[in-house]
Amino acid sequence: MPTITELQVHDVRFPTSRDLDGSDAMNPDPDYSAAYLELMTSDGNAGYALVFTIGRGNDVQCAAIRALADHVVGRDVEALLSDLGGFSRELVGDSQLRWLGPEKGVMHMAIGAVVNAAWDLRARREGVPLWLLLAQLSPEEIVDLVDFRYLSDALTRQEALELLRRAQPGKTARIAALQAVGIPAYTTSPGWLGYSDEKLVRLLREARAEGFGMVKLKVGGDVEDDARRLRIAREELGPGYPIALDANQRWDVEEAVAWLQRLAPEGPAWIEEPTSPDDVLAHAAIRRAVSPVKVATGEQMHNRIIAKQLLQAGAVDVLQLDAARVGGVNENVAILLLAAKFGVPVCPHGGGVGLCELVQHYAFFDAAAVAGERPDRVIEYVHHLHEHFEDPVRIEDGAYRAPDAAGSGARMHESSVREHLFPDGPVWKDPAHVAHA
Amino acid sequence: MPTITELQVHDVRFPTSRDLDGSDAMNPDPDYSAAYLELMTSDGNAGYALVFTIGRGNDVQCAAIRALADHVVGRDVEALLSDLGGFSRELVGDSQLRWLGPEKGVMHMAIGAVVNAAWDLRARREGVPLWLLLAQLSPEEIVDLVDFRYLSDALTRQEALELLRRAQPGKTARIAALQAVGIPAYTTSPGWLGYSDEKLVRLLREARAEGFGMVKLKVGGDVEDDARRLRIAREELGPGYPIALDANQRWDVEEAVAWLQRLAPEGPAWIEEPTSPDDVLAHAAIRRAVSPVKVATGEQMHNRIIAKQLLQAGAVDVLQLDAARVGGVNENVAILLLAAKFGVPVCPHGGGVGLCELVQHYAFFDAAAVAGERPDRVIEYVHHLHEHFEDPVRIEDGAYRAPDAAGSGARMHESSVREHLFPDGPVWKDPAHVAHA
Repeated sequence: MPTITELQVHDVRFPTSRDLDGSDAMNPDPDYSAAYLELMTSDGNAGYALVFTIGRGNDVQCAAIRALADHVVGRDVEALLSDLGGFSRELVGDSQLRWLGPEKGVMHMAIGAVVNAAWDLRARREGVPLWLLLAQLSPEEIVDLVDFRYLSDALTRQEALELLRRAQPGKTARIAALQAVGIPAYTTSPGWLGYSDEKLVRLLREARAEGFGMVKLKVGGDVEDDARRLRIAREELGPGYPIALDANQRWDVEEAVAWLQRLAPEGPAWIEEPTSPDDVLAHAAIRRAVSPVKVATGEQMHNRIIAKQLLQAGAVDVLQLDAARVGGVNENVAILLLAAKFGVPVCPHGGGVGLCELVQHYAFFDAAAVAGERPDRVIEYVHHLHEHFEDPVRIEDGAYRAPDAAGSGARMHESSVREHLFPDGPVWKDPAHVAHA
Repeated sequence: MPTITELQVHDVRFPTSRDLDGSDAMNPDPDYSAAYLELMTSDGNAGYALVFTIGRGNDVQCAAIRALADHVVGRDVEALLSDLGGFSRELVGDSQLRWLGPEKGVMHMAIGAVVNAAWDLRARREGVPLWLLLAQLSPEEIVDLVDFRYLSDALTRQEALELLRRAQPGKTARIAALQAVGIPAYTTSPGWLGYSDEKLVRLLREARAEGFGMVKLKVGGDVEDDARRLRIAREELGPGYPIALDANQRWDVEEAVAWLQRLAPEGPAWIEEPTSPDDVLAHAAIRRAVSPVKVATGEQMHNRIIAKQLLQAGAVDVLQLDAARVGGVNENVAILLLAAKFGVPVCPHGGGVGLCELVQHYAFFDAAAVAGERPDRVIEYVHHLHEHFEDPVRIEDGAYRAPDAAGSGARMHESSVREHLFPDGPVWKDPAHVAHA
């Protein structure tokens, strides 16, 4: 009977601030980082997961994950993996740890990562990609994964079950179609605030040439700068091409509305994170004021309770879940069910370290077994850092190909982990060191 | 020119689970703990603060505080203390650390504690209690402390200024009155779920004999148990005596309403934390349904943005701020201003480790300089653990006496810290060890 023998945690950081990759109105100089964990078993298997951070504090995130070792080390692997709903509820519900959130911040993200590592281990052992593992569960097995506490005023277990049952017919055909054509991607790579206009134009051209059907520009630094960059993009891409905007939480309500009035003539596809991710009522007020511009948010939505309220309040047109912010696969399944109930599309947040590799599984699972086909479902894509992953995303003609490798996509190359260890890896010890890709 | 020389952090835990002190429907066996910090200066002064936790994870909280050392060590003390608004904004706004919340959970509480230690240092150097230091600032100095980002749809800087100016007349007289008569307390000590009915009755008698004008019972385990305990309390205390209830986040909306219908005949003063602290809309729905029973919440409200929404949505009758949950003194000043704008009383959360010592300063400051006199302002009181503090609260005739010792009340006895260090202090190494009081 194999058991979990070890929870290894690594502080991995990439010096992205040297090139201003990832620079936006709230995050001028991120060093994209991962609190990366490996869950080892006595029969030589392993599960992988990570929490994405942007530099300082990655050590605190690692400490929080290590603090969960007692919850997993020594456990029977079969028993653990056969009840991941119970495992998730046990970790999220640990009353002493819960006090540190509750269900938010460093401790909740740590719990999410440990839950995700268990899912990764299960998918690897079963030899399937995570999305397909989830899609092949029965409706009953799926609702057993979810903690419906605090959700029942918007979605009961019974309603979730019925919703999943309605998606059963055609599931096999949808899975085949997803494996054949994938899911459309959009790219944020051209739009970082720290880039020059020349670099913007070059990257926009490349994005269109690569087949992306939408791009996204960061905004919120200076309104006239934003208007200029948006005009440049509009001229480059033509009148019908969708251009989304992302303010990364920069504004208050009134400021958001005024800024959007200035930018609305260029017809943006959506405004993302106009204000604090905690502010359900402000998102609702902004959405009412800037319509028909759509409002998107969710990458820093800290749990299913905030997701529920965003939907109840009519605060969002697009819900952007993240794979490493909430309490793991189980809580993201809850969020997908909520969004399906309210008819709002889920367009996951990509970028960072490995987020594209991780979030694609939610979009494919959603399309296969929850919300089904939706023409408005897109997945964010950012070019950087894929080379550090064992199973990098595959983008063809502007679409994510369905992942076919076993697992959740979180496993990094051992050499990448070793070279980027903070503070003692060679990339940090010697700034001239060039890491292997 | 004195500088900050060191940020010392101690993992201090009290084995309260041995006696079920602090047991409630969500927290069956807490070990009341503190991530305790000392900010030392080159001229021999120090500032003290703590984050209260309930056991496991206190080490993670300590790690988060230690991660902030670079923000304070080496700084000029005078410059730091003369701009605590700027200092607070700098820490909360650190873009890399902000990613770990934003503005919530372990990292935000760590920032709050470092901010609070700076305030404690300032109050000690000026030889005044924190509440009086704040009350004697000008309206302009007070609004300079506040980060109005995300607040302006409910409260602008100008509105806050006007509100504070209106409270200026009579401030001196109110301070004198507060120093003469204090602020009424209520006690939760009788009402922990783990206590027998006999212990409940004995403690209720003692509470009334000591002059407390209200008691609070924990509920949410079993509705018939709760009804029995509430009936016992009502019989013991008589028909007019206020009895508040606290569910510690136990319910969903429908369950809360049904539970309250069962308990309403005994006329509870309020229902506290009926559901998730993140759920603004659920609190609003519950409040509408259970009126005239009042709804209270706030001890786990993670920042000013949630406070704002609770007030905007008409979700609370009573706002219960905590001294060690949000980003420190500065964010609590913002919360007091918001509550005053909406006319909702602030009745701080006591208990835990040192929270009574800390929160009383907000109630006294509020009464002196923000909301002014309010007959419905009460401060929670719980008997345990005061003996570990240098300046324990003074309760007389059921009221908090105005603190008169310099500082914020956070300093613990060195012997208490040493004996309760986890895991190597004598209280933890040897369960038979009896700590000094």
